[in-house]
This record gives sequence, structure tokens and C-alpha cells, in this order.
Amino acid sequence: MDRVKIIEVKENVLGSNDERAEILRRQMKKEGTYFVNLMSSPGSGKTTTLLQTIKQLNGKYRVGIMEADIDSAVDAQTMVESGIPAIQVHTGGMCHLDAAMAKQGLDELEASQYDLVFLENVGNLICPAEFDTGAACNMMLLSVPEGDDKPLKYPLMFSMTDVVLINKIDYLSVADFDVDACKSRIRNLNPDVAIFEVSAKTGEGYEAWIKWLCDRIEAWKKA
Amino acid sequence: MDRVKIIEVKENVLGSNDERAEILRRQMKKEGTYFVNLMSSPGSGKTTTLLQTIKQLNGKYRVGIMEADIDSAVDAQTMVESGIPAIQVHTGGMCHLDAAMAKQGLDELEASQYDLVFLENVGNLICPAEFDTGAACNMMLLSVPEGDDKPLKYPLMFSMTDVVLINKIDYLSVADFDVDACKSRIRNLNPDVAIFEVSAKTGEGYEAWIKWLCDRIEAWKKA
Repeated sequence: MDRVKIIEVKENVLGSNDERAEILRRQMKKEGTYFVNLMSSPGSGKTTTLLQTIKQLNGKYRVGIMEADIDSAVDAQTMVESGIPAIQVHTGGMCHLDAAMAKQGLDELEASQYDLVFLENVGNLICPAEFDTGAACNMMLLSVPEGDDKPLKYPLMFSMTDVVLINKIDYLSVADFDVDACKSRIRNLNPDVAIFEVSAKTGEGYEAWIKWLCDRIEAWKKA
Repeated sequence: MDRVKIIEVKENVLGSNDERAEILRRQMKKEGTYFVNLMSSPGSGKTTTLLQTIKQLNGKYRVGIMEADIDSAVDAQTMVESGIPAIQVHTGGMCHLDAAMAKQGLDELEASQYDLVFLENVGNLICPAEFDTGAACNMMLLSVPEGDDKPLKYPLMFSMTDVVLINKIDYLSVADFDVDACKSRIRNLNPDVAIFEVSAKTGEGYEAWIKWLCDRIEAWKKA
């Protein structure tokens, strides 16, 4: 066998979710709450990223968190122990959140009391990208140990996100990860995306990311 | 807020797949092909694991590979370049394979000519666990950089797998990963599971895993 044989196998999925997402987005705008949907593989550092981001925002915004998971409450527990308002959303086995599920979480969190709400989506590089949650900003992490080929294999999420944080750059010395090749693969899918190289653990690279986030929130407020 | 608020949000999913899986499993048994379903998060090292496993099997079995991905053919290309018979299965955006999709792949691969076939499932710690592919053995990887809390957050896959390889133990010196805590979390979900600590990159820990796999194949042949 000298060439790779490619076959397409298919199954049905998806319902209609876009209208609910648009209504939710308008509601959040009216209430002045900037809603960010954070996505990544399991173990890319979503929770640590939120902790570091909130620390570096240094009180600039009132921030609330929705932690989504299939099971356990370890992430929301981590947030609450750090003094950050957070709820845990269980998806009943589901691999993603849609706009209806996001709205239930935002209602429970009483989101209108915050300037900025993050949804830490279920750890999954595929399904969350298929469902508009109603967020004003889609954000994703790719961690260095996952490998620089991930944009080739999971193109949808890299295509629909507004910003990518390449996380765990403190692993670059031990991992075989080509940052330039990775960025170029991301930009091939999504020419306008913002990309930052960071370490949520050490805070390296956060200045540029925090500036981008604040600029975007301020522009959204005025729009 | 001093306690974590937990709410359950739900959506519908799933069709019936178990019967097709059982028929496929019987067919594979009749043809003498041991079918292994390999699952993990994106970037846990599935492809490297297959390469190292085949190397260490050292010609004992005729091995064929089905690489499943949403897009790209990089993994099947890697296999073919190493001289290993492989096909790439594209799932048309789907986040998992079911028994019908696995059967299409096995037919294309002409699986009956092999003693051992691995399906490298889509990188996803959730959805693949919900669908019986018809495999004789379910196998998963958890890589050290993902963190030792993953069994708490993604319990289904840890519950239904026959074997877990804790991969990338060469990262233990830089990662905050408690191997004993992780193993105990896995065993709480699945008391009979086999667990091996390995590095697919260096081959460390492979002797025990390869012995377990060969013993299992030989027992299956006699059953």
C-alpha cells in the first residue's frame, strides 16, 4: 500500500440553535455583560487560564464564571476557593453546551451583575465548535504538549474562534512543537484570528492577551 | 457565594448501535482479527503509541491500522511512511465512530488479512465512549500533561475501557501529576481495569503493556 486510502463515513446530528444564540447575545449586550466562551481539549489549562486572566485583570471588571463539565465540581470548587464567583454546570453527559444550556447557566449565575462572564466549556476540541452559545467572543486554548498539528485535525474550532492562546509555552523546551508552523496552520484556517503565546502557570505572555481582551470589551461596550 | 451551585442541563442524543456492534464483534472473531479501539484526548500520543506498540510486537502479528479524524490524513501518512498498512477514515465532522462507521473502515482495510487491527478513534475524551464500535478491546491513553483529575471529569471513558496507558511519563519531572492519586481515581470507576505507566516516545514501560496485550489476544483466540 503506497498511498493513503481515504473514505468518508457519515452520520446525522445537529438541531437548530442559531436563533436562540442570537437572542441571548442581544440580551447580554443590553445587560452590559461581555460573555466569553472558552474551549479546548481536556487538560489544556482552561481553569488555570481563567485564574491567571482574572488575577491580571486586577479588579478592572466584575467577573463571574460558569464551569461546565460532564461530572465533578472540581473546577468551580477551585474558583470559589480563590474567591471568584462561579457555578458548575453539568451537561448530563453531553459533550458541549448550546445556547439554551448556556442561558440556563447564565440565569443561575445571575450574570447581569457581572461585566464579564466566562463559560469554561466541556473539554473537547470538536463538538463545542458546532454550537453557538450566544457568546460575544469565542476563545480557545491549544497547549504545547498536544502538538502543533492540531489545526490540521480539528479545523472547525480553529476556524470559528476569535482568539487562540497557545498555552504551556513553559513546555517548549521538552516538547517537539513548532510555534511558527502552528500559527501558520491556524492563520490558513482563520486569517483574522488573534494568537498569543502564553503560560497560564507563570503568567508569561499575558500582558498582550489582557490588553487585547480589554480593548475588545471596551469596543463592544461602545458598539 | 460559599458553596458551589450545581445545575443539570440536558439535551437529547444517541440512537441504537449495540446490535450492529455485537454482529461486527462476532464477525471479527470468526475471521480471527482482534480489533482494538484506541481512544484519548487530542494530542495524548495515540499515533506514537501505535508506532511504538507495533515496533515492540516485533512482527508477532500482522497489524493493520484505521486512522480516524475529522480532517487531514497526517496520521495515516505517518503509518504508511513507517511501512504499516493503514487507512484514514474521515468522519464528516463527527466526533466519534459508531459500529457502522467502524465496519465501513474495516471493510475498506480488508481487515480479515490481519491478526490485529487498531482503530485510532477521533481525539475526544467524551463521545467515543458512548458508542460501541464492535471492538474486542477498548483502550485509552491519558497523558501526563492533561492532569491527574481527568477521571473525575470524564468518568464514562475511564469506566468502559479495558486498559489505560498513562502516557508521556517522561513529562513527570515538569508536570504536577500524582500517579497514585490518578490510578486510584481510575480504579474507583473501574476496579478491573489494567493500567500501565509508559512513554510511547522512549518505550519506557512497554514490556508490561505488550505482555498484557499478547496474553489477551491469545486468550481471545482460545475462547
